[in-house]
Amino acid sequence: MCRLVAYLGTPIFTDEIIIKPTNSLIHQSYAAEETENPVNGDGFGLGWYNKDIREEPGIYKSIFPAWNDQNLIHNASFIKTSCFLAHVRAATVGGISTENTHPFSYKQYLMMHNGGILEFDKIKYDLVQLLDPESFLWIQGQTDTQYILALFMTNIRKLRIKGPATSKQMVACFNKTFKDIEELKRKNGVDAIALYNIVLSDGYRMIATRYSTDPNNEARTLHYAEKMSCVICEEGTLKMDVANEKRTSTLISSEMLTEDTEKWREIPQNHAIFIDQNLEVTLFELD
Amino acid sequence: MCRLVAYLGTPIFTDEIIIKPTNSLIHQSYAAEETENPVNGDGFGLGWYNKDIREEPGIYKSIFPAWNDQNLIHNASFIKTSCFLAHVRAATVGGISTENTHPFSYKQYLMMHNGGILEFDKIKYDLVQLLDPESFLWIQGQTDTQYILALFMTNIRKLRIKGPATSKQMVACFNKTFKDIEELKRKNGVDAIALYNIVLSDGYRMIATRYSTDPNNEARTLHYAEKMSCVICEEGTLKMDVANEKRTSTLISSEMLTEDTEKWREIPQNHAIFIDQNLEVTLFELD
Amino acid sequence: MCRLVAYLGTPIFTDEIIIKPTNSLIHQSYAAEETENPVNGDGFGLGWYNKDIREEPGIYKSIFPAWNDQNLIHNASFIKTSCFLAHVRAATVGGISTENTHPFSYKQYLMMHNGGILEFDKIKYDLVQLLDPESFLWIQGQTDTQYILALFMTNIRKLRIKGPATSKQMVACFNKTFKDIEELKRKNGVDAIALYNIVLSDGYRMIATRYSTDPNNEARTLHYAEKMSCVICEEGTLKMDVANEKRTSTLISSEMLTEDTEKWREIPQNHAIFIDQNLEVTLFELD
Amino acid sequence: MCRLVAYLGTPIFTDEIIIKPTNSLIHQSYAAEETENPVNGDGFGLGWYNKDIREEPGIYKSIFPAWNDQNLIHNASFIKTSCFLAHVRAATVGGISTENTHPFSYKQYLMMHNGGILEFDKIKYDLVQLLDPESFLWIQGQTDTQYILALFMTNIRKLRIKGPATSKQMVACFNKTFKDIEELKRKNGVDAIALYNIVLSDGYRMIATRYSTDPNNEARTLHYAEKMSCVICEEGTLKMDVANEKRTSTLISSEMLTEDTEKWREIPQNHAIFIDQNLEVTLFELD
Repeated sequence: MCRLVAYLGTPIFTDEIIIKPTNSLIHQSYAAEETENPVNGDGFGLGWYNKDIREEPGIYKSIFPAWNDQNLIHNASFIKTSCFLAHVRAATVGGISTENTHPFSYKQYLMMHNGGILEFDKIKYDLVQLLDPESFLWIQGQTDTQYILALFMTNIRKLRIKGPATSKQMVACFNKTFKDIEELKRKNGVDAIALYNIVLSDGYRMIATRYSTDPNNEARTLHYAEKMSCVICEEGTLKMDVANEKRTSTLISSEMLTEDTEKWREIPQNHAIFIDQNLEVTLFELD
Repeated sequence: MCRLVAYLGTPIFTDEIIIKPTNSLIHQSYAAEETENPVNGDGFGLGWYNKDIREEPGIYKSIFPAWNDQNLIHNASFIKTSCFLAHVRAATVGGISTENTHPFSYKQYLMMHNGGILEFDKIKYDLVQLLDPESFLWIQGQTDTQYILALFMTNIRKLRIKGPATSKQMVACFNKTFKDIEELKRKNGVDAIALYNIVLSDGYRMIATRYSTDPNNEARTLHYAEKMSCVICEEGTLKMDVANEKRTSTLISSEMLTEDTEKWREIPQNHAIFIDQNLEVTLFELD
Repeated sequence: MCRLVAYLGTPIFTDEIIIKPTNSLIHQSYAAEETENPVNGDGFGLGWYNKDIREEPGIYKSIFPAWNDQNLIHNASFIKTSCFLAHVRAATVGGISTENTHPFSYKQYLMMHNGGILEFDKIKYDLVQLLDPESFLWIQGQTDTQYILALFMTNIRKLRIKGPATSKQMVACFNKTFKDIEELKRKNGVDAIALYNIVLSDGYRMIATRYSTDPNNEARTLHYAEKMSCVICEEGTLKMDVANEKRTSTLISSEMLTEDTEKWREIPQNHAIFIDQNLEVTLFELD
Repeated sequence: MCRLVAYLGTPIFTDEIIIKPTNSLIHQSYAAEETENPVNGDGFGLGWYNKDIREEPGIYKSIFPAWNDQNLIHNASFIKTSCFLAHVRAATVGGISTENTHPFSYKQYLMMHNGGILEFDKIKYDLVQLLDPESFLWIQGQTDTQYILALFMTNIRKLRIKGPATSKQMVACFNKTFKDIEELKRKNGVDAIALYNIVLSDGYRMIATRYSTDPNNEARTLHYAEKMSCVICEEGTLKMDVANEKRTSTLISSEMLTEDTEKWREIPQNHAIFIDQNLEVTLFELD
């Protein structure tokens, strides 16, 4: 069912979040807890920013299970970054290939997704017609996620914004994207659910949605911890405390990464959060 | 630039053609001779039929170079078949993934391609509009080949034929497919070449095209050996002789597999050959 | 923790055992039931015999998780055999590589293992000294399993038997092998447990051990079903019945493959079973 | 036949050496020039130091051909380092696995090898007896290289040096290692050649040998460029100039990386070079 983690804050070595914590993403790759399907062994992806070098992120992807990925385990402690997105996959739509592994990059953006559009094949052909050519050509794999993001990018481009989109514009575009897909589902007689836990970042700011098209079916879990200082304890587990001058960050994660669960909040069903450059979180309702 | 081999005839162990010959496909994976680019290390695929078991072929694909593929080397001698298609890839369009590895299967059909549409991205979006939904949804990768074959299948379906298409109908559909693509290229201002060395089979019959859209640029090499008996010599090389009662076959190959080159004929530029169930070859001109 | 299945009997398509059953090996690769660690995603191996072609088995190995292995899923129904061994791995000793993937082959033999020698590194250097050069050179990976089997083969060779070893000789050699290792553990101060659920076959006969060096720690589960007829039901699950003239087989499996558990027996702790060419099972006590 | 590149000097982004140059290691992976076998598609490895983070190097290894390795191509420009070793492999001894991919690491050391011991299997068993347990247990693959390096490390340990070995001590140990192996070859009747182009570094200093055991058979090519400034030109090719205050480095490479061949020197047959922390090169004769 996929698990994801995203970090924005004081530069940190990626292993402190994705490898060392008790319930790290690596751990979740073979034993996820807040889901019925605990195995996420169909590939791993890490995207991170180093704005001193370039605007576009670095990306490491592997089609092997994360739990035994020696490159990841050896080098995560070499990657220091103020913003990263990481994802372990349990394949549903699209075969196991690098092209189908999250996070996906588009120019300076990184995007990843937990969820999916059930019966996606019934709307895929029509969905192509909604995409502008640039978005369609960007798609390099077969996941529903790539089509959702291509539609989101098409919708952003229609706004003809100069410069980066505002939080409101992004929320509006996610809303439109989800509605466009519902319209296609209706047109093609698809009654099945679509679930959109999506994280998108440009390396400075971050937006995350938690959305289910079925009010009776809760969206996947998605938590955040706002303006916290993450510290690795002696025993190796992650501890979070109130932010201090040296360390502060806002984290998003499918599963709570620490045992002190009171530090985490759940993004409410059918809402989005926007994290700005000061790491402050704004909550938006999705239609 | 990809290399391919196809076999139709008396049941044979696949290793006798794709591994043992001096210039076998395995050899061509690292040292192809009739091409400027001798390395085809971006994956390998073998599709074969066993009609006693099922109409649909078996397929083994690997994203590792064929020359060191232990599964292939150990098991090719276990696979006995009257019809197989094999392909080594030098990736041009589409990443290295199983989804992008030839041969591609559709129901009982196997198809593979050597060549490509240059500047494919400029026509890809419009090409989708020509496909029927079934063909579009069949596409599981990003190669130009899959789009060509999807268009070919759409064109076949438009004929509303009952039962298997005749050789003439298939040739006509390849002609239409190549022309449809030329039309899209014109519409989008693409002047670059397209090369179509394609082999397609249903396990009983086989068709192969050798086509270049530019009269001044010769198509890739493509040879065939009609109604020959293939025998592995003591020294391990492949020898071909006139067919006998025990062994007879017609072979198609990017490169001549034996040193007695007089046994091989080249498919003329912009022609197709059709091999019927009696292994007889008919030559067709393509427009 | 690894899961394994072995089959000896009337020729059968391998998918009927390793893919189609409710609790097939494929299923066990992501959701094993009779173990604390349900994920076996570190590679898959299938070895099978076709004595009409050659004495040595065919082997297909993959370092990807079995649950999404398209080669396996597509082609298992093409492999018909009277004897096969299949294994899904949860790596403990030795990295994820083809060389470390079970089953291992030596001449006409196939061997696989569920279990391991804890603190193996403390005895590995001394263990090499016990191996004859042929056995040492046979080792192509880093698993404890390969060293155990190399020692077993060394011990067999010491008997200077002409022709195939008898069931008693094989049991004696397993006994000696396990004792040799205990001796090395004592010498090197290793108090940790060693677990040996091992299956070995020459394609005609099969032997399986279930052994724990610690009387207080039970060996891994290992079941067998003697002289049964396996049939796939309409609903796709495996059903076993009393053998009939058309179909009879003896199966060994880490986990019971069918819901009618009364058809299965457990190999008692520290015992071996030998299956002869008539599929009859003899039970042996291990020292 | 393997190709390798090593860099010591002013911190540089790795892509400037291993990707961008006309004759970069990536280029050599499919079209090496100074060798009869131009394809090195059996894996890739990059080891690099960042002493601000830790003494031990980071390592990225892949069993796919380097030419299409998206992780490498995307992230090499993110890795800035004052010392790296990179290697593309054409497998001879040992299967294609991460465990068999160079460079190999041992504590703070990185080591890689171009060449090999012909008929290695004839001396492998005896060679184990020369290794101390720590060295033997360090071996995680099956390449002759790992055994050579394990023997080198055993020989170093025998010297009971405190602190890092001097250049003379390292040269003496390589001499002893090569002689030990010749002794084993004699003892086992092996007349075949052994070739040792080896690079070893601790991140501060570097040593490289170019050695052939047969005076009539020249060692593989191995070049170095001493105290040069490497700059990427507008056209993307690498240019080397006399060192300046901002940029200076000493490079070792199987093939000359630039067209101005007069900047490169060949390590003479059966010699070693030692590069100290000031990037100065000392030449040593090997016995």
